[in-house]
Amino acid sequence: MSSEAANTAPMASAAAESKSTKPKDSKKKSKKLEQFLLKTPKGTKDWADKDMIFREAIFNSLSTLFQKHGGVTIDTPVFELREILTGKYGEDSKLIYNLEDQGGELTSLRYDLTVPFARFVASNSISSIKRYHIAKVYRRDQPAMTKGRMREFYQCDFDIAGQYDSMIPDSEILQLLCEGLTGLGIRDFKVKLNHRKILDGIFQACGVQDEDVRKVSSAVDKLDKLPWQAVKDEMVKEKNQPEEVADRIGEFVKHNGTVREVLDILRNDELLTANKSAQEGIADMETLADYLDAFEISSFISFDLSLARGLDYYTGLIYEAVTAASAPPTDAEKLKQKAQKDKKEVEDASEYVGVGSIAAGGRYDNLVGMFSNGKSIPCVGISFGVERLFSIIKARAQKQLNEVSAYKTQAFVMAFGGGEGWNGYLKERMAIAQRLWAAGINTEYLYKAKANIRKQFDAAEKSGAQIGVILGKEEYLEGKLRVKVLGQGEDSDQGELVDVKDIVEVVQKKIEESKKGGMDDITRLIRNL
Amino acid sequence: MSSEAANTAPMASAAAESKSTKPKDSKKKSKKLEQFLLKTPKGTKDWADKDMIFREAIFNSLSTLFQKHGGVTIDTPVFELREILTGKYGEDSKLIYNLEDQGGELTSLRYDLTVPFARFVASNSISSIKRYHIAKVYRRDQPAMTKGRMREFYQCDFDIAGQYDSMIPDSEILQLLCEGLTGLGIRDFKVKLNHRKILDGIFQACGVQDEDVRKVSSAVDKLDKLPWQAVKDEMVKEKNQPEEVADRIGEFVKHNGTVREVLDILRNDELLTANKSAQEGIADMETLADYLDAFEISSFISFDLSLARGLDYYTGLIYEAVTAASAPPTDAEKLKQKAQKDKKEVEDASEYVGVGSIAAGGRYDNLVGMFSNGKSIPCVGISFGVERLFSIIKARAQKQLNEVSAYKTQAFVMAFGGGEGWNGYLKERMAIAQRLWAAGINTEYLYKAKANIRKQFDAAEKSGAQIGVILGKEEYLEGKLRVKVLGQGEDSDQGELVDVKDIVEVVQKKIEESKKGGMDDITRLIRNL
Repeated sequence: MSSEAANTAPMASAAAESKSTKPKDSKKKSKKLEQFLLKTPKGTKDWADKDMIFREAIFNSLSTLFQKHGGVTIDTPVFELREILTGKYGEDSKLIYNLEDQGGELTSLRYDLTVPFARFVASNSISSIKRYHIAKVYRRDQPAMTKGRMREFYQCDFDIAGQYDSMIPDSEILQLLCEGLTGLGIRDFKVKLNHRKILDGIFQACGVQDEDVRKVSSAVDKLDKLPWQAVKDEMVKEKNQPEEVADRIGEFVKHNGTVREVLDILRNDELLTANKSAQEGIADMETLADYLDAFEISSFISFDLSLARGLDYYTGLIYEAVTAASAPPTDAEKLKQKAQKDKKEVEDASEYVGVGSIAAGGRYDNLVGMFSNGKSIPCVGISFGVERLFSIIKARAQKQLNEVSAYKTQAFVMAFGGGEGWNGYLKERMAIAQRLWAAGINTEYLYKAKANIRKQFDAAEKSGAQIGVILGKEEYLEGKLRVKVLGQGEDSDQGELVDVKDIVEVVQKKIEESKKGGMDDITRLIRNL
Repeated sequence: MSSEAANTAPMASAAAESKSTKPKDSKKKSKKLEQFLLKTPKGTKDWADKDMIFREAIFNSLSTLFQKHGGVTIDTPVFELREILTGKYGEDSKLIYNLEDQGGELTSLRYDLTVPFARFVASNSISSIKRYHIAKVYRRDQPAMTKGRMREFYQCDFDIAGQYDSMIPDSEILQLLCEGLTGLGIRDFKVKLNHRKILDGIFQACGVQDEDVRKVSSAVDKLDKLPWQAVKDEMVKEKNQPEEVADRIGEFVKHNGTVREVLDILRNDELLTANKSAQEGIADMETLADYLDAFEISSFISFDLSLARGLDYYTGLIYEAVTAASAPPTDAEKLKQKAQKDKKEVEDASEYVGVGSIAAGGRYDNLVGMFSNGKSIPCVGISFGVERLFSIIKARAQKQLNEVSAYKTQAFVMAFGGGEGWNGYLKERMAIAQRLWAAGINTEYLYKAKANIRKQFDAAEKSGAQIGVILGKEEYLEGKLRVKVLGQGEDSDQGELVDVKDIVEVVQKKIEESKKGGMDDITRLIRNL
């Protein structure tokens, strides 16, 4: 249980990755081979030690939240039939991982948890469900490991499927989003909000043809990373929109503010009054504004007409939560150009990206219908990005990391003795450990037939055990054991001499007295960071 | 949250699978398309509803066990560099799932959790660790869904890595295996035990050439499914062993009994006295016999010389746990022949297989060394097969299923009113729900602006909530709410009229009084099946 070694696991593997040979060179085996073998695939990592404990605390916090809102959990396969995923992700479809055709069905790793959820709802003919799902998803994207941009990463999703009155489930999802981030100790976030019907209405009113709406939308989606001029260029040059159309769009997408502020602008805009799609969206947003007040979360919300979201399947409200850490550093462009000039293949792009949105989602009313002859079930949901949350929380929790241990051992059984005929009391230690295990006590002992006092105390300390159970050579022959609270110096006291028959009771009492931080304590620690 | 629909999820998808078109026919789209889409890939399934709760209880029981023995948990990527997996699994390597070569590294889905663990230990230069890992693994095997033989399935692994005295970690693993199964309410199991050094010694002593040992071993491995004559035929005809060699092996592998009984036979066997490998194994088993007694688990153990285990990487003790459900039905051979005669492609082979071993493992002292220039760390471990345990537990728990709910909702907020100006108190319900959430209470309400009494009570019942919080039109105007214990008939009592300001406190008190079964209760339920 060498805790230091395990502690460095993610670092070590990230370092191994950046040093790795390029895959195409793998024919040059020999010396490079071992280095190549000793890493995880690009964009993936091992989780271990305290990182694992922190991640568990994040999962714990979010699943408690999801259950608070009536969620039940499901688990779907990590790969789906390829046709299930086809045509759902727009320009990002190229990032889907395929499994090799080894005969049989063509399958791909899931790209998100939303499409598998819609397939699940359709294939089981479910009319309504609130489900949560915490699992890994896969994207062949350019990774930026230290910022939590991975090829294999966790999503924590909560979705509400069912036919309900307008904006009621949507507002609860936004409430849950704010409650979820606050519960993870993140308070400096903003939820950017927009509505696909308003956005599409704006595009139509500005003169975009219906068939061009999605591709213009995906240009607008880049406004969080690029200046308006670059987005305009993409619309005009790559997507063949007249310059005046792009300029009209530019006038709209610069608006943001409270829901009521932006609604005032939209309601008074002459271009939009005749647009049915925009008016439907505006009516939704008016309803929503009231509900956000009822939930007391309006202060977190920014109605932002530049938010477009890349995925094809959204049909209504869309949103994403961002923090200061979401934005790229101010010298990002310079760093990027330097890297390109140096012709470095950028394995780790983390220097010039922010963590991006830490949670995102929207309404998708037609996705289930794509799997069930058009008989659709309206859905709305949110996805929390665990790696990004983790990197923010871990950066804040440097000090608190010391208070957290990955080890949960409570008792360590030792034997002290020596001289003629001393056999190390191994079988006796096993029998005592067996009794403690049977009572539910986390117990270890040193895997040596005979071991000296120092080695046993060292092992006990490493294990994190609070209680030492000591079999003294002579004492044990008289049916006695010594029980000692650890971590107070080896010789601080001699411990309490107890009858072997009372051992479980005494150890349980001493554990109760010196209680260690459990998962709830860590969840609380994170919340109060 | 239509519980009936979700309840049938795994059945529905299994049914869809068996009806599916053969994959190669997928060009014949049109009508078959929807049916094809509405399923999970072959050998995989969705988990939902009560199945999910039972599975969580199994995970809970096992991870508590692993922590009891000092285990820390890790998480590795679902795919590894292909070279990591190559050459580790013997004849079963053909079952590895590859990812498509889309440029970049060649990767494959993990086949077990053991090889990724060894890679983790090597790449982080860990000298000792007890780790547990609960995760999915992938094998392109012929699935038998109802018996828990899947292509995607969970393993729960516990491994001890480090340089220790002989048989001490090995015996603790066996103790943990027995404790784990007993803790899941399984008591009619047997742990079959053998030692690779004894087995290899027997093969050598019987006249098998060193280079043939592994392939003779893999023939012996089939003795749990085939009669001796078929295994002998494979040795003689396919693996070119002289008939007298096979016959000599046959004399050995028929032995089984307690460790001391079989040791007596081996110690007195003249063929083995000169064999170094066998003598080392025998010495190990003598040490082990004492430790099994110290742990009081000897009665579960059967030293069985026919146990060989397929995997290449084992070097010492090997074992697997079986129950009555592990064996194929007595008419298996007949069923199989009939299926072959009918030229049916056997999609679901469950009719003529047992669930197989429910947990298995062994010692592998050289695997870490394959990733670290030969500097190896001795390891020993156990893997519990969750799907197989689940299918046994579920079959026993039919009655108890009724006591378990997937829903954890505690309070349901409703509004009663009508007549002129009645607005349904939606925003008021939201505000009350918000206060209950903030206090950590699992709360729902109906997502309708206005809803009648009956519909709200139905939804409350479906949610499983114990407590109804009722906003009466007039009462609420006077700052009062009604709190009612649900599930006792709608009109059994009028509930308690309380001040709005006291609502959290009152609901918390009533929940405390009518506590539902949590995860610990379900874990206990399974243990006592």
